[in-house]
Amino acid sequence: MGSMQTVTLIPGDGIGPEISTAVMKIFEAAKAPIRWEERNVTAIKGPGGRWMIPPDAKESMDRSKIGLKGPLKTPIAAGHPSMNLLLRKTFDLYANVRPCVSIEGYKTPYTDVNLVTIRENTEGEYSGIEHVIVDGVVQSIKLITENASRRIAEYAFEYARNNQRSSVTAVHKANIMRMSDGLFLRKCREVAENYKDVKFTEMYLDTVCLNMVQDPTQFDVLVMPNLYGDILSDLCAGLIGGLGVTPSGNIGANGVAIFESVHGTAPDIAGLDLANPTALLLSAVMMLRHMGLHDYGNKIQTACFDTIRDKKVLTKDLGGNSKCSEFTADICRRVQDLD
Amino acid sequence: MGSMQTVTLIPGDGIGPEISTAVMKIFEAAKAPIRWEERNVTAIKGPGGRWMIPPDAKESMDRSKIGLKGPLKTPIAAGHPSMNLLLRKTFDLYANVRPCVSIEGYKTPYTDVNLVTIRENTEGEYSGIEHVIVDGVVQSIKLITENASRRIAEYAFEYARNNQRSSVTAVHKANIMRMSDGLFLRKCREVAENYKDVKFTEMYLDTVCLNMVQDPTQFDVLVMPNLYGDILSDLCAGLIGGLGVTPSGNIGANGVAIFESVHGTAPDIAGLDLANPTALLLSAVMMLRHMGLHDYGNKIQTACFDTIRDKKVLTKDLGGNSKCSEFTADICRRVQDLD
Ligand SMILES: CC(C)[C@H](C(=O)O)[C@@H](O)C(=O)O
Ligand SMILES: CC(C)[C@H](C(=O)O)[C@@H](O)C(=O)O
Repeated sequence: MGSMQTVTLIPGDGIGPEISTAVMKIFEAAKAPIRWEERNVTAIKGPGGRWMIPPDAKESMDRSKIGLKGPLKTPIAAGHPSMNLLLRKTFDLYANVRPCVSIEGYKTPYTDVNLVTIRENTEGEYSGIEHVIVDGVVQSIKLITENASRRIAEYAFEYARNNQRSSVTAVHKANIMRMSDGLFLRKCREVAENYKDVKFTEMYLDTVCLNMVQDPTQFDVLVMPNLYGDILSDLCAGLIGGLGVTPSGNIGANGVAIFESVHGTAPDIAGLDLANPTALLLSAVMMLRHMGLHDYGNKIQTACFDTIRDKKVLTKDLGGNSKCSEFTADICRRVQDLD
Repeated sequence: MGSMQTVTLIPGDGIGPEISTAVMKIFEAAKAPIRWEERNVTAIKGPGGRWMIPPDAKESMDRSKIGLKGPLKTPIAAGHPSMNLLLRKTFDLYANVRPCVSIEGYKTPYTDVNLVTIRENTEGEYSGIEHVIVDGVVQSIKLITENASRRIAEYAFEYARNNQRSSVTAVHKANIMRMSDGLFLRKCREVAENYKDVKFTEMYLDTVCLNMVQDPTQFDVLVMPNLYGDILSDLCAGLIGGLGVTPSGNIGANGVAIFESVHGTAPDIAGLDLANPTALLLSAVMMLRHMGLHDYGNKIQTACFDTIRDKKVLTKDLGGNSKCSEFTADICRRVQDLD
């Protein structure tokens, strides 16, 4: 077994602490060589009145490079930024990656879904630049750059190659936004030239949505600008059972990454030992793979899917009656049995 | 029976003429009091080099106010505009309306879908305003106006009230585009005040997509800016069987409207008597209702759904082996039996 690696743990709000505890327990059972460094990232006002994440959290992330994060509530203080956006910005997490894979035993209208959405995470419709032109007329600016488009396209093709996936589809509306989506698409095409082993296709966003709900099994890796990714990643999560079972990773340069469950804080059940830790756990599995710790990741994932397939110990949202701690214990037991 | 009303028929390209013929036959069988005035709308270059629809088509629409349109291929001449966009613009068809209702006997992963998407059709991301800021940096402008937002919100609430629908959901990303989607949302809220009989809710687009694929039966009328409508209307069409069975209407001021099938021209089967006329026929049913001819509309819709439910005479895409003309004849026979 290798040496311990540090991960910055951001438990988050609401059910965040409970599901973080669940993940830590399962990691312990798996003997995953991870040391957790717990941090609170709720934004504070820095010099000049700009919102920033607390220095000790920033410092931990800068050192560990890897974060695991539960759900965060965005405080409603005037002008408080979305915590998700602030984290993406602070660490330049330019790729949002969401594998959506059907979970055996968890019934949805679809089977055999096995796709990955890769969302550009830094620009596009999320530029935040808006103006009132005249009274009653507002414009928002969607910003697309060559660099960010190339970078996300490269990420998508690298991802496909490294994960034995055979095709990348660029999702766009370049028939309408000819210049901006056109630029995005051109960069995808250029990058595709360097990955002849990966099939490249292009599709309109509306067509993707239509085909997705009719037959998601036709899709593999999808890459797209920010807003389209926001939409499609949630749509695809819905196909396999929702945000409670969907992992997510936000990837930056030089190995920096934050993995997170994208569901809410569920304040109504917080502290009641009723939460489902699956999304955070599967995000942690993505994290292990990102760190090269595939064996640990595979073991934990197998245990988690076995527990779900077995249907005996499930949290309420998964259709069972068990507590979070019982569900967690069942996974722990299976992880140990796999040794 | 009242006097005949004129409708401008735009048969369109590819399978357009065959499915238009099918609709005319069924209308004849139903004795619907419609006189068809056939026109070609393929854009021509007008004075000053601007693309426009031919004067005789424009003149016909100006007189009849009502169009029924098959699929159009957009010629690939340089700078040729999308015909759909040009028609929307020429007649200021500000509302795109798509009822998505599960069709009994046509199996999809969903049952009991019964919702309507209402899309703002004139502005937003479709402004066509784009710039290169510096090399490699492009911006597209999304334009939202108070007037267009109020107009579409009013349309949605009127639609709900007149069609015995109980709720309107405004779909937005005002958490990201605070000013533009914020303006849209504010107008929806204001208009909602005048329709206390209709329930009003607001939802993020990503959440709508997620919930839509998990349980579409929770939705009723949805109203949204242009691009979101482009996406959601196709997604919802997918839930009930795709564009081959989904009707669509583009509504302007003073009763002007064009009803259309939104599927493609299907050049591969054009002229082979294999096309499915359902989408155009159901669009024509929407048209009859728009014209106040509800009885004719209901009769034709019943006959069409009966044919599909019966499963004996279906076109290939619907799972059968019949020709377009046989499918059409079956509907005609049923329409006559309903008399
Ligand atoms: C919370 C919100 C700002 C965010 C987004 O729109 O990106 C969320 O929907 C997401 O996908 O992470
Ligand atoms: C053809 C295209 C311009 C159009 C759009 O994007 O609006 C189409 O997708 C539609 O929904 O009518």
